[in-house]
Amino acid sequence: VILYFSLCLCLCRAEDSAMENIVTEKKAEESHRQDSADLLVFILLLTLTILTIWLFKHRRCRFLHETGLAMIYGLLVGVVLRYAIHVPSDMNNVTLSCNVNASPATLLVNVSGKFYEYTLKGEISGNEINDIQDNEMLRKVTFDPEVFFNILLPPIIFHAGYSLKRRHFFRNLGSILAYAFVGTVVSCFIIGLFMYGCVLLMKQIGHLGGDFFFTDCLFFGAIVSATDPVTVLAIFNELQVDADLYALLFGESVLNDAVALVLSSSIVAYQPEGDNTHTFEAMAMLKSFGIFLGVFSGSFALGVATGVVTALISFNFTKLRDLPLLETALFFLMSWSTFLLAEACGFTGVVAVLFCGMTQAHYTFNNLSPESKDRTKQLFELLNFLAENFIFSYMGLTLFTFHNHVFNPIFIVGAFLAVFLGRAANIYPLSFLLNLSRRNKITSNFQHMMMFAGLRGAMTFALSIRDTATYARQMMFSTTLLVVFFTVWICGGGTTQMLSCQKIRVGVDTDQENFVSVFGVSTKQESAWLFRIWYNFDHNYLKPILTHSGPPLTATFPACCGPLARCLTSPQAYENEGQLKDSDSDLILNDGDISLAYGDITVSTDATGAHTSGTPVGGVAVNSDVALDRELAFSDHELVIRGTRLVLPMDDSEHPLPLDSHRHKNETMS
Amino acid sequence: VILYFSLCLCLCRAEDSAMENIVTEKKAEESHRQDSADLLVFILLLTLTILTIWLFKHRRCRFLHETGLAMIYGLLVGVVLRYAIHVPSDMNNVTLSCNVNASPATLLVNVSGKFYEYTLKGEISGNEINDIQDNEMLRKVTFDPEVFFNILLPPIIFHAGYSLKRRHFFRNLGSILAYAFVGTVVSCFIIGLFMYGCVLLMKQIGHLGGDFFFTDCLFFGAIVSATDPVTVLAIFNELQVDADLYALLFGESVLNDAVALVLSSSIVAYQPEGDNTHTFEAMAMLKSFGIFLGVFSGSFALGVATGVVTALISFNFTKLRDLPLLETALFFLMSWSTFLLAEACGFTGVVAVLFCGMTQAHYTFNNLSPESKDRTKQLFELLNFLAENFIFSYMGLTLFTFHNHVFNPIFIVGAFLAVFLGRAANIYPLSFLLNLSRRNKITSNFQHMMMFAGLRGAMTFALSIRDTATYARQMMFSTTLLVVFFTVWICGGGTTQMLSCQKIRVGVDTDQENFVSVFGVSTKQESAWLFRIWYNFDHNYLKPILTHSGPPLTATFPACCGPLARCLTSPQAYENEGQLKDSDSDLILNDGDISLAYGDITVSTDATGAHTSGTPVGGVAVNSDVALDRELAFSDHELVIRGTRLVLPMDDSEHPLPLDSHRHKNETMS
Repeated sequence: VILYFSLCLCLCRAEDSAMENIVTEKKAEESHRQDSADLLVFILLLTLTILTIWLFKHRRCRFLHETGLAMIYGLLVGVVLRYAIHVPSDMNNVTLSCNVNASPATLLVNVSGKFYEYTLKGEISGNEINDIQDNEMLRKVTFDPEVFFNILLPPIIFHAGYSLKRRHFFRNLGSILAYAFVGTVVSCFIIGLFMYGCVLLMKQIGHLGGDFFFTDCLFFGAIVSATDPVTVLAIFNELQVDADLYALLFGESVLNDAVALVLSSSIVAYQPEGDNTHTFEAMAMLKSFGIFLGVFSGSFALGVATGVVTALISFNFTKLRDLPLLETALFFLMSWSTFLLAEACGFTGVVAVLFCGMTQAHYTFNNLSPESKDRTKQLFELLNFLAENFIFSYMGLTLFTFHNHVFNPIFIVGAFLAVFLGRAANIYPLSFLLNLSRRNKITSNFQHMMMFAGLRGAMTFALSIRDTATYARQMMFSTTLLVVFFTVWICGGGTTQMLSCQKIRVGVDTDQENFVSVFGVSTKQESAWLFRIWYNFDHNYLKPILTHSGPPLTATFPACCGPLARCLTSPQAYENEGQLKDSDSDLILNDGDISLAYGDITVSTDATGAHTSGTPVGGVAVNSDVALDRELAFSDHELVIRGTRLVLPMDDSEHPLPLDSHRHKNETMS
Repeated sequence: VILYFSLCLCLCRAEDSAMENIVTEKKAEESHRQDSADLLVFILLLTLTILTIWLFKHRRCRFLHETGLAMIYGLLVGVVLRYAIHVPSDMNNVTLSCNVNASPATLLVNVSGKFYEYTLKGEISGNEINDIQDNEMLRKVTFDPEVFFNILLPPIIFHAGYSLKRRHFFRNLGSILAYAFVGTVVSCFIIGLFMYGCVLLMKQIGHLGGDFFFTDCLFFGAIVSATDPVTVLAIFNELQVDADLYALLFGESVLNDAVALVLSSSIVAYQPEGDNTHTFEAMAMLKSFGIFLGVFSGSFALGVATGVVTALISFNFTKLRDLPLLETALFFLMSWSTFLLAEACGFTGVVAVLFCGMTQAHYTFNNLSPESKDRTKQLFELLNFLAENFIFSYMGLTLFTFHNHVFNPIFIVGAFLAVFLGRAANIYPLSFLLNLSRRNKITSNFQHMMMFAGLRGAMTFALSIRDTATYARQMMFSTTLLVVFFTVWICGGGTTQMLSCQKIRVGVDTDQENFVSVFGVSTKQESAWLFRIWYNFDHNYLKPILTHSGPPLTATFPACCGPLARCLTSPQAYENEGQLKDSDSDLILNDGDISLAYGDITVSTDATGAHTSGTPVGGVAVNSDVALDRELAFSDHELVIRGTRLVLPMDDSEHPLPLDSHRHKNETMS
């Protein structure tokens, strides 16, 4: 675009410049005060939410989750702002209207010889201009949608990756990937096609007030395909529902947020040649697909890379453990820089942060001092909590304060049906296909539960509010809000009922259950081949290079790479050799894998003190001896059975290892 | 100001609106990418600082503190940005220049029928316009100065208040208040007058390139009177320097930040009638003084009030202890809302946050669960660390990237002299006066150390960068930068040398020392009368109402208020009655106070198990029995000496009390 414009000098009545300076300062101060007051409204809203949650937890109410509550409070405040408070805007603020033919990012305005700098905030529609003049307050409490993507979503998504229960996640990796990738794309297209039908219907009966293309429908499909079962999972956690069901739901929702985000931006990038054709074009579609792959894999690689760099830093700077503050700060900064790096490179920061979180949890976490482990977890837990509740209360607020709501009954009913259909088309056919190869079947009551738990949350909202410039987008936004409200309140609130209705077991002690299942015949087939290859590679090469746990590289590297292995192996690894132990391996192993990996290592558990080799304990014998079982499950020590080492599955995130912390102390002293 | 302007329509070459939309989006994306990259520079800078600090701590280097290091890295990056990278700005971004006679906060720009919203960023000078066109990168890494006051300073100041070592602070309260209030005002006026002399000299020899009024000089005096001995205190902590000296320096620097901030804004508000008179006007000065008092006391009251509200909430919602996440979130939000509330009311948020932090530490902290105590401390420690290092690295950066530096040799030399004189006029006369009434004298080597430790830091920088519009302010900013660099590097780096040169004892075990001094005759006079009144009131009324420690109110309230006292007393207080103990009282008491307050309570230490009354232990006997001393000092139990209870001084922030945590458990179970 070539800029070409001329601005005529206006007739100015010269004012005393000193006086004007004061006025400008006053205005800025007034505006700052207003901003503080607006933010205060949100902070008090969150405070109120916390106090009410406390009341609910105290009374053991499970029908309303904190996010649902935050939405209700947001709604109430929205109503008050909309109808009770009326702050007419100072017309002076908005009356300057220059007619030019370009919208530069920065504007210099010459006011009686002084230059003022203005920055572009965004395009606003005619409706908004009226509203601005109508009620300043409403406009003030509206955030820039990019705040969600740059400030609020990253901690939520990072926390999801960081708090992933890796044992069950990796065990169900294949199924989770299928639901997240195939399922989300299927759901997106089903919803898109269904909605396009609705739109055509609306067009025929003249209910459509603006353009609505097929790509818009697909975009809608993408944004409402991102599930966020935070409410459901909170209840699952509390009731100790089956860990596999938990892992499937959690893993799917974490990954499909990323898929939906990249998918939606690829759809936006799908721009057929010529203007606004309804037909698909092969080249443009291929380009979109390329963008999807490029952005997703780029973000993935970037996230993993930063995670690995952090692991290497914390691996080599072991003395950093004495200074948990520095360690935590480093961890925080490195994770944040992942986001910024991805954004600066044109990838998707949120996706990069997700994979960074998973890498940090898998490698860096093991190198941290026990105190830093706690600190980082607590920090991201807090950030996640605040950001999540902020988004949900803002969601409630927008229902009344957003200016361009387009509520179209046909579209809304269609959307609810489409969401239902899309979720069904994701879960049932895929479960059927997955069950063909799974030994540990996804039973039909699990499938119904997954269907029911497809809530929509923060990501869906953030995606829909990102762009509300056109009529189609406004209609989508209003409809999305209703979908989120409905699923969070009705599906979220009905979780306990649904669980008992589907007769899903609660109160499962996962550690004990898995300990028993390890001896069963089903174990071998349960771990998928994909997973086993990955596990071996990870355990033999990545873990020893990136963390202080795992076997020394000299034992796992091929003989020809001996010198390289020796130079990469940390002294701790040799020390560990005697008491070899994979402290963070939350993975189910079968003895075939183990004997393969450790064939050349003599294993003894003398350091741990308990359960040494002498007694020949058979699998069945252990199984029947419940008291021993229990003790083993909680001590997390090693057990030698017929010469083969067996790693007891234990989620170390909940039970810090005594042995491990002991080792840290030794390092600190040396 | 009456707005009156007309804007002529410009000649536009109509562009395809769809095309333009895409271009606008591209531009926004490009700008976002650039922002991410800029922020990434800072994050990587901080990461580098952390890694180097680690190296320094590892090698026990004490001559350079992390803040000094952050500045050096900032300087290096500044040099690179200034001379190595040259990103010519896209002229399109800044070419729009409307001539109007007002600067509204919001601007609507009509671009071929579409409206774009622009927000006011601030006034820019002619120099800057050239620079903008010269190097876009430099302009991009410059933050809005208000970021410091709204984002970076609050956590630093809150942390200072929250981590105050209250025992020694309250013991030296009178001296600290004198240094912070009287001393800062004296220093401000001394520096102001001295600088005015310099300015007059410069005017005579024609070295002055613009206006420079007496109020500007006073303003300069106010901003460089805010001390920030963070470097010195870090070394004090490490070397365990005398606790009183630590308390004096720390307390003074915390409070004088607040004083300097309010003082500077009062000076700005001092606007004599007529334009730019040099003479003082009584009315305007009185008004300024009124503003100072009003803003300071308002911020103080607000901060304390929110702290008390938080204490009351955490006092009444005791079950919140089971959910440390909610507790921490509540604590964080309430502290943040203090800041916002103060700003919204027109007070100073930073000052309010300081007093809020102190109140939280004194009351709320006692009501928190042990886990939340850790969490809140660690959270604010991290925020403080990040914010502080960010400010110092930004400081280094600005030396090369700021556009309007005015380095005037006379002014700079004058400023260094004035800063020296101002500090001397603060410390020496006040110490002399204070020593007249202090039993525990401030010795001359302590005075020299305090003189030497008057570093300038974050607050001075933030105040000086806040407004750099005029020539005078630009000169002040450049000079302030140099003062900060000099004091942080030279004075901060020379702390260890200065300590040994002044023969100040290091490696003092404060707990033991105080335990011994409690038996000495000097104790009674050491606690000032002001402090004793405050302590009695706090201990008998405030502590029991706001926390679960302290005696039941029924024992301390006058008999006539019996019913009120009963209804305010928590059940725990009665339970505590038998084992009465002021767990967080970091205060030195003499037995006169105690017997007054507890005359009617029979005290026994049966619950604590150790050192019960039977044995008559005399003061001298205990003093000679070092082994017993030690044991007492670390067990923090009570000791009955001749029927009078004695509270052992112990900083509970460092040694969580076993008894206390035991009590928490009981509550949780009940």
